[in-house]
Amino acid sequence: MSLNFTHLIGRLHDQKELKRIVVVCPNDVHTHRVILRSLKEGIASFILVVEEAFPDVVEPIRMEYPDLVKVCKSESVVEAARMSVALVRNKEADVLMKGTLNTDVLLRAVLDKEKGLLPRGRVLSHVAVAQIPSYKKLLLFSDAAVVPRPHLKHFEAMLKYDLAVCRNLGIDEPRVALVHCTEKINGEFPHTLGYVILKERALNGCYGALHIDGPMDVKTACDAHSGEVKGLDSPVVGNADLLIFPNIESSNAFYKTISLFGNACMAGMLTGTMAPVVLPSRADSDDSKYYSLVLACTMSEMRILSYIL
Amino acid sequence: MSLNFTHLIGRLHDQKELKRIVVVCPNDVHTHRVILRSLKEGIASFILVVEEAFPDVVEPIRMEYPDLVKVCKSESVVEAARMSVALVRNKEADVLMKGTLNTDVLLRAVLDKEKGLLPRGRVLSHVAVAQIPSYKKLLLFSDAAVVPRPHLKHFEAMLKYDLAVCRNLGIDEPRVALVHCTEKINGEFPHTLGYVILKERALNGCYGALHIDGPMDVKTACDAHSGEVKGLDSPVVGNADLLIFPNIESSNAFYKTISLFGNACMAGMLTGTMAPVVLPSRADSDDSKYYSLVLACTMSEMRILSYIL
Repeated sequence: MSLNFTHLIGRLHDQKELKRIVVVCPNDVHTHRVILRSLKEGIASFILVVEEAFPDVVEPIRMEYPDLVKVCKSESVVEAARMSVALVRNKEADVLMKGTLNTDVLLRAVLDKEKGLLPRGRVLSHVAVAQIPSYKKLLLFSDAAVVPRPHLKHFEAMLKYDLAVCRNLGIDEPRVALVHCTEKINGEFPHTLGYVILKERALNGCYGALHIDGPMDVKTACDAHSGEVKGLDSPVVGNADLLIFPNIESSNAFYKTISLFGNACMAGMLTGTMAPVVLPSRADSDDSKYYSLVLACTMSEMRILSYIL
Repeated sequence: MSLNFTHLIGRLHDQKELKRIVVVCPNDVHTHRVILRSLKEGIASFILVVEEAFPDVVEPIRMEYPDLVKVCKSESVVEAARMSVALVRNKEADVLMKGTLNTDVLLRAVLDKEKGLLPRGRVLSHVAVAQIPSYKKLLLFSDAAVVPRPHLKHFEAMLKYDLAVCRNLGIDEPRVALVHCTEKINGEFPHTLGYVILKERALNGCYGALHIDGPMDVKTACDAHSGEVKGLDSPVVGNADLLIFPNIESSNAFYKTISLFGNACMAGMLTGTMAPVVLPSRADSDDSKYYSLVLACTMSEMRILSYIL
């Protein structure tokens, strides 16, 4: 049977050591639920960084799982963000998760040039993983959240990061569709020219073992019949593991549409950072937040090395 | 019960006179099926423009429905396209449908400055109508197919055309979501600045009775819960009739995703032209091609006047 989130959770049970997740400002009930579910299902341990003004909010969780939960206190939200990032830098935590604070505040700490999590010169991006009932396997895609106007260097970074995530998940020869609304390579759509360069570099072995094709639309990438009708045939057509979208608007529309109208379960995390960073959005379901932690914890240390390069 | 394609078909049965559809080069079995279904369900009459080289392909259809089907012969595909456009210009046909020919050939005839169907200076665009099982009503959106890099004048044209289509369908006060990946109005995303201008003009009464809001993402536009979580409240949030997308890539991704993963039935046609033009894509289902004809035939003459303005 093809890979799904349940399999990933199963693998986490087989870890020798639990991954350590640091949560910045876990003040809301949704974050509490995700932490409790992770503890109950035994997939991770936690460091909860709370503001001194709210010392009691996580106490029931710590009391229920005293061996798996540490609580750190900070003077302010900004301080909590900095402390959490430092814990990851110092290898006292493996994964960073946003709780109840403004995304900008956390990102400022993550992107700090001296003390942050993004090595100098590296592109910050985002990967989403969808489990769609009507698709045969997990489907990864980028970038629905971070890079506003991607160019070739961003596409190449996304591709490298996401390939590493695929390989972490056990997809050794990922099938990558470079998405556009047309199959034609066309100066009218400049990204399609960048796609040609990515395909050439892939042929030259720059990205390891993979199948890559495009431009093609979402339906051609994920539905064999649509490819047949158009006379297209490649290992990618109808069988994509990974979709690279031409811009944030199209990727975001895909994200929202499969979760709303395709009943998809979603996971997501930042890429390019030294360690996985999970930034749930307010409109994400509790399941989606939990699966994002599962995804982040699945990134093994050895594999993270390749995933950040 | 909310409007769906079945209701639209029902309305066509109540027409005093059937709409006349001219089909350019109906040489393939899918086009034949759509024509036969339309004839059987009594929604339209047909003029079939065939090449002389293929005189027999539509003869069985003409023999089955001699009163409802006329056949015209042309010397070439290009001539067939020109003849069909001329029939619409001369008011001998109400709707133009593409059969088995290259889209570019038909578009050249449609866009001809002297003898085509697009009045001088008018923007050509496209509207799609989706019937999604998990959404409570028909959902219109633009532009998944025509305008490669829309700017304010294109957005305003799409909005005007699509509002006219909504009103044709009986949606008198359409709820319009201006879609983006963010709710913030932001110079980083220049289209969001254009959205502000459209909302101002709407407030000033430029577009008639409507509710318009945005930027907002697809989920916020179509799911009340997502809006609540984000603290957004407007007549549009969770209740959109019409989505205006920021670019063709995002709109196309939405189109392909709801049809593949959302089990949506789709219809579509060009807008801005003197009369509806239906250009089915090879990967569209027979249902989708049929519903496109239903949509096109629903545009009443009086309403077409407003829809082209």
